[in-house]
Amino acid sequence: MYTSLPALLVVALACPCRALWPIPRSLETGSTPLVLAPDFRIVGLRDSPADLSSAVARSQAYIRTDRMQRLVVGRAEADRARVQDAMQLPSLVLSIPEGEGVGSIAQEAVGPLGTRSEEYVLHVPADGAPAMLAANSTLGLLRGLTTFEQLWYDLDGNATYTLEAPIIVTDSPAFPYRGFMLDTSRNFFPITDIKRTLDAMSWTKMSQFHWHVTDSHSFPLQVPGFEEVAEKGAYAQDMIYTPADVQDVITYAAERGIDVLMDIDTPGHTAAIYESHPEHIACYLGSPWQTYANEPPAGQLRFASPSTTTFTTELFAAAARMTMSSLFSTGGDELNLECYTNDTATQEALAATNQTLEEALNTFTMSTHGVLTKLGKTGVIKSDMVLDHNLTLPNDTVVIVWKSSADAVSIAAKGFQFVHQPSDYFYLDCGAGEWLGQDPLGNSWCDPFKTWHRTYTFDPFMNLSASQHQLVLGGQQPLWTEQSEPENLDSIVWPRAASSAEVFWTGATLPDGLPRNVSSALPRLHDLRFRMVQRGVQAIPLQPLWCALRPGLCDLQS
Amino acid sequence: MYTSLPALLVVALACPCRALWPIPRSLETGSTPLVLAPDFRIVGLRDSPADLSSAVARSQAYIRTDRMQRLVVGRAEADRARVQDAMQLPSLVLSIPEGEGVGSIAQEAVGPLGTRSEEYVLHVPADGAPAMLAANSTLGLLRGLTTFEQLWYDLDGNATYTLEAPIIVTDSPAFPYRGFMLDTSRNFFPITDIKRTLDAMSWTKMSQFHWHVTDSHSFPLQVPGFEEVAEKGAYAQDMIYTPADVQDVITYAAERGIDVLMDIDTPGHTAAIYESHPEHIACYLGSPWQTYANEPPAGQLRFASPSTTTFTTELFAAAARMTMSSLFSTGGDELNLECYTNDTATQEALAATNQTLEEALNTFTMSTHGVLTKLGKTGVIKSDMVLDHNLTLPNDTVVIVWKSSADAVSIAAKGFQFVHQPSDYFYLDCGAGEWLGQDPLGNSWCDPFKTWHRTYTFDPFMNLSASQHQLVLGGQQPLWTEQSEPENLDSIVWPRAASSAEVFWTGATLPDGLPRNVSSALPRLHDLRFRMVQRGVQAIPLQPLWCALRPGLCDLQS
Repeated sequence: MYTSLPALLVVALACPCRALWPIPRSLETGSTPLVLAPDFRIVGLRDSPADLSSAVARSQAYIRTDRMQRLVVGRAEADRARVQDAMQLPSLVLSIPEGEGVGSIAQEAVGPLGTRSEEYVLHVPADGAPAMLAANSTLGLLRGLTTFEQLWYDLDGNATYTLEAPIIVTDSPAFPYRGFMLDTSRNFFPITDIKRTLDAMSWTKMSQFHWHVTDSHSFPLQVPGFEEVAEKGAYAQDMIYTPADVQDVITYAAERGIDVLMDIDTPGHTAAIYESHPEHIACYLGSPWQTYANEPPAGQLRFASPSTTTFTTELFAAAARMTMSSLFSTGGDELNLECYTNDTATQEALAATNQTLEEALNTFTMSTHGVLTKLGKTGVIKSDMVLDHNLTLPNDTVVIVWKSSADAVSIAAKGFQFVHQPSDYFYLDCGAGEWLGQDPLGNSWCDPFKTWHRTYTFDPFMNLSASQHQLVLGGQQPLWTEQSEPENLDSIVWPRAASSAEVFWTGATLPDGLPRNVSSALPRLHDLRFRMVQRGVQAIPLQPLWCALRPGLCDLQS
Repeated sequence: MYTSLPALLVVALACPCRALWPIPRSLETGSTPLVLAPDFRIVGLRDSPADLSSAVARSQAYIRTDRMQRLVVGRAEADRARVQDAMQLPSLVLSIPEGEGVGSIAQEAVGPLGTRSEEYVLHVPADGAPAMLAANSTLGLLRGLTTFEQLWYDLDGNATYTLEAPIIVTDSPAFPYRGFMLDTSRNFFPITDIKRTLDAMSWTKMSQFHWHVTDSHSFPLQVPGFEEVAEKGAYAQDMIYTPADVQDVITYAAERGIDVLMDIDTPGHTAAIYESHPEHIACYLGSPWQTYANEPPAGQLRFASPSTTTFTTELFAAAARMTMSSLFSTGGDELNLECYTNDTATQEALAATNQTLEEALNTFTMSTHGVLTKLGKTGVIKSDMVLDHNLTLPNDTVVIVWKSSADAVSIAAKGFQFVHQPSDYFYLDCGAGEWLGQDPLGNSWCDPFKTWHRTYTFDPFMNLSASQHQLVLGGQQPLWTEQSEPENLDSIVWPRAASSAEVFWTGATLPDGLPRNVSSALPRLHDLRFRMVQRGVQAIPLQPLWCALRPGLCDLQS
């Protein structure tokens, strides 16, 4: 009556050995073992940009140090016999079309959405001939190198092998915006933690780091000409990102194929500016905070005041000049209008300019987004500003949909391009309990915890018409950091954030034409997680190891 | 209309500076600043046991390296003026009553529950006279040293100070069993991670490490005479605890005032034994697993078979001989009787012995607990075995109440001593989402996440009569590790597990006689968390730093 042990072994050996994440759009694999030659090397371009040479060196290092064993019963030992007499792969040769000079990865990565060339083809023959990786850009080559790194397993530290040659990959992302958002205001994250996160993002071919750098709790960004804001508004002098730090992050990210979207939240979520500029902030420490904000502390820009508008616009201009991206976010979430009802400065400003509060908000937003346009940047804003307020925004404004996945339809109806960041599918901080004091029975506002499988079932085109599909730029999983610091950054983000990375790279269907599904994804995600751990990212296990070694045996329905 | 900034500063300065965790039973503090003299030293006992000398050295080191700044706006800087001309404390002098030799901490810590002397008195005068720490045992001195370490803050690395001299502490725990349970079967934890956990436990004066060492997923314990069970049933050869490892953990724990309760789960949760002894295990890989277990894999001891009873009893005897504790757990949770309905071996054994399944279970349990009694150990068992089965258990058996806090009443009614481990208050793994495959909408079975404040509101005497209070030994927070490995051990355990540590040390009331409450606890728990981070334990933040610096301002109700 019970399945016998030999049957278990069959299940294990028949597991999907395609461990790539995200899975390429087109993938053909064979069943021939292949090992890397002792002198295996990756042959880069003759006139290689420095960042491509670095990427090649990183790939060579990962292939040498990953020491990843296959997730099957018996682990690497189970493959020994097949690997022993395998053909050797001598090299991987990179190529790019001849042309007028080769751009760097960084240049390609920070271009406007829709212009970045990420496609590549990869061929690993089974007969001992060199493997080939071709792309139209160095960014495409980087994506292909990332795929190549994931093909290899280790036996005893002596043999680096695949069991699936020949391998033919033709790949390109379904959506250009595949992101992760980190809040560095509620709690602070040193540069080294951000860089480690960027590394992990690049391993899943993410393209966008949304740096929610400031908020009400602290203002850790040193903006040239506005140094006092961070000096007074940061948590501490060693909890400030200097312009050099920002440059460091942007460059590090770009070299790994990631564009940095800087986000200075306004006009709400700005209490920290009070410390340096009390004249610009209303209702800081307004009591009770519940009347003036969704979480403590309350504090918002007096956007109706012309001097505050000037201050904010100049702050944005200075901050935007720190970035390389074509995108810049002015925030825009959870503006609380009640804050201004009894704020004398605001009421006087409205009277003086003869505007309603909504008109003043429009004036303010036209000014802040106007300066971005002038600097050649595309403004990014939260969906609240489009759905709850009647603002005049540039047509190319990118909207981040966050409150609910259902809001995407309303944004699309208004004709804006948008990024999916729905709290009901994507928020990494949900489910960790109430963090406010005096609430022993309280739960997370966006309970329950968003599992990787919940995220994975997200449909980017849900309820959209075919003509609206072009408005979907992609999506991202955010981490709001009320209860996070470097201590749990990796464990709360990885491997879960990889879930949406595959949703937006792979799109609706697997290479076989079957729809994406959690069953075939789980073994691959296990593999990615263990590889991340090998590389020093503290990604957490998704199941007991017993289950990771036996795909399907820990499913709810068998 | 808004609270002004000076008002905020008043709130910050008026914050409860008593940062001790758990808070002592009796505590008097003054308001005189005091700094440690440059040559400050802790004067130990003349004939000090080695583990007390080590404890003294650790305390001296922590005091030097904690570099903990007070959690107030302005941090240490806010205290500079008060610290500058403070009196100096030259030393802390330990003392113990003269008698027939001084026992080690380890000896005292592993004694039977109720016999361990943990009380101490600590006096830190404000006038520059030496501080005094007195206890009736070296274990009591260890508890006092732990309190002493938490008194000190750092200014610039030059001054180590308190603002609250004189300080008078008279302290002893409300309950002897203050524990943490770690499951090392679902996923494996190296010794180094267990030791780091023991360190953190000792900082909160916990007394019991419940090592749930084996379960269905893997059997990582090398038991002398039964080496084959781990050799085949562990996840890998480098994922085995050897007898030397176990000795190492037990000694390390005992020197830190912690007794190790070893737990080999039986007769359910034993699938891993199948790998070495298929003859003793029924329904391994029974399909579907839902019929035979609460989670995959199914697999249970054939407890009706005399040979299986002999095997298990001898295994327990050999494992119990590895331990120093007076306690040993035989497991006992989630036994699935359906497993045996079609198990030929079991049915034949029942027929041969002319017993019902329940009678056979009683025979089995009498044998396993009988051998523990013979070895001078007290058996520990899960509440299922008492509530769902009519077993003959020794009167001194300790029951772990886990399914629901409401079960304590039923256990007390049967007259057993018990340990609180209720899933509705204490489970650290709850709320992290479903881990089974093929269940994209599934949540954790014990949703929601158990916040520290939820745990903190637990009443150990809930619904018990006064005469039943003596049955309450204490409580513990468990970590079941379906989704945990070393990567998230610290972040999922700390600082939350400290919450029950205070519940069971401090009891119902604060030193002022007021009931324990989450408002006064939160600033102290923040302090503990930051101190843990300083000492290398990756405890997570409970709130944005803005809130940690401003007690009360992030409360739900103000």
